[in-house]
Amino acid sequence: MSNIFKKTLLYDFYGELLTKHQKEIYELYHLNDFSLGEISEQLKISRQGVHDTLKRCEKQLENYENKLQLVDKFLINKQNVEKIYNYASEILDSFNEDKQSQEIVANRIVSIQETCNRILEDL
Amino acid sequence: MSNIFKKTLLYDFYGELLTKHQKEIYELYHLNDFSLGEISEQLKISRQGVHDTLKRCEKQLENYENKLQLVDKFLINKQNVEKIYNYASEILDSFNEDKQSQEIVANRIVSIQETCNRILEDL
Repeated sequence: MSNIFKKTLLYDFYGELLTKHQKEIYELYHLNDFSLGEISEQLKISRQGVHDTLKRCEKQLENYENKLQLVDKFLINKQNVEKIYNYASEILDSFNEDKQSQEIVANRIVSIQETCNRILEDL
Repeated sequence: MSNIFKKTLLYDFYGELLTKHQKEIYELYHLNDFSLGEISEQLKISRQGVHDTLKRCEKQLENYENKLQLVDKFLINKQNVEKIYNYASEILDSFNEDKQSQEIVANRIVSIQETCNRILEDL
């Protein structure tokens, strides 16, 4: 998993547990691509202070993941649901040749796929 | 949702974020059914101290849920996956009458159901 992807997931899952101040600095740096200097100037705090806050945020996010493993679980669930989706696609494909009772099955399979999409949105 | 069921889920999801001391008291009270007096005696702290710790734990767990909504998401995902599972069962049932290409489809559907079970275990 790429470092940036991991950081994004960690923030997605645990960002709400940071303080408002920490979130502001974390977002300016990681989402809005501000430099340490630009953040320091905008928020009127020292460059070192910005640096320390970012390090502390990362440590806290990693710490939450060590305890709750939400990112890990999310990746496993996502993989499993994608598997379901692909199985369903294979069934649909197998019915391109055989037209028997296709309608009932096709309806159900579309429902399966819609449900998979809903799960993926919510995970 | 029953109060006990909700408390169990909150602790399942966020218990790791409590301190060792908080967890000990919370588990003695909620999982092992100890009374305030029994916990007070066993841990050599005042009854009021046990009571305050329990209240603080509950508040913290609720606070995490307000921020992360893991219990809410879990319940939604569980419902969705159960839906998938039932759709798959309906397909299997529909094939009791029509034997055509039953084997391929049945194989796939069993895979879908196995995957659903895996998701449910991981959620």
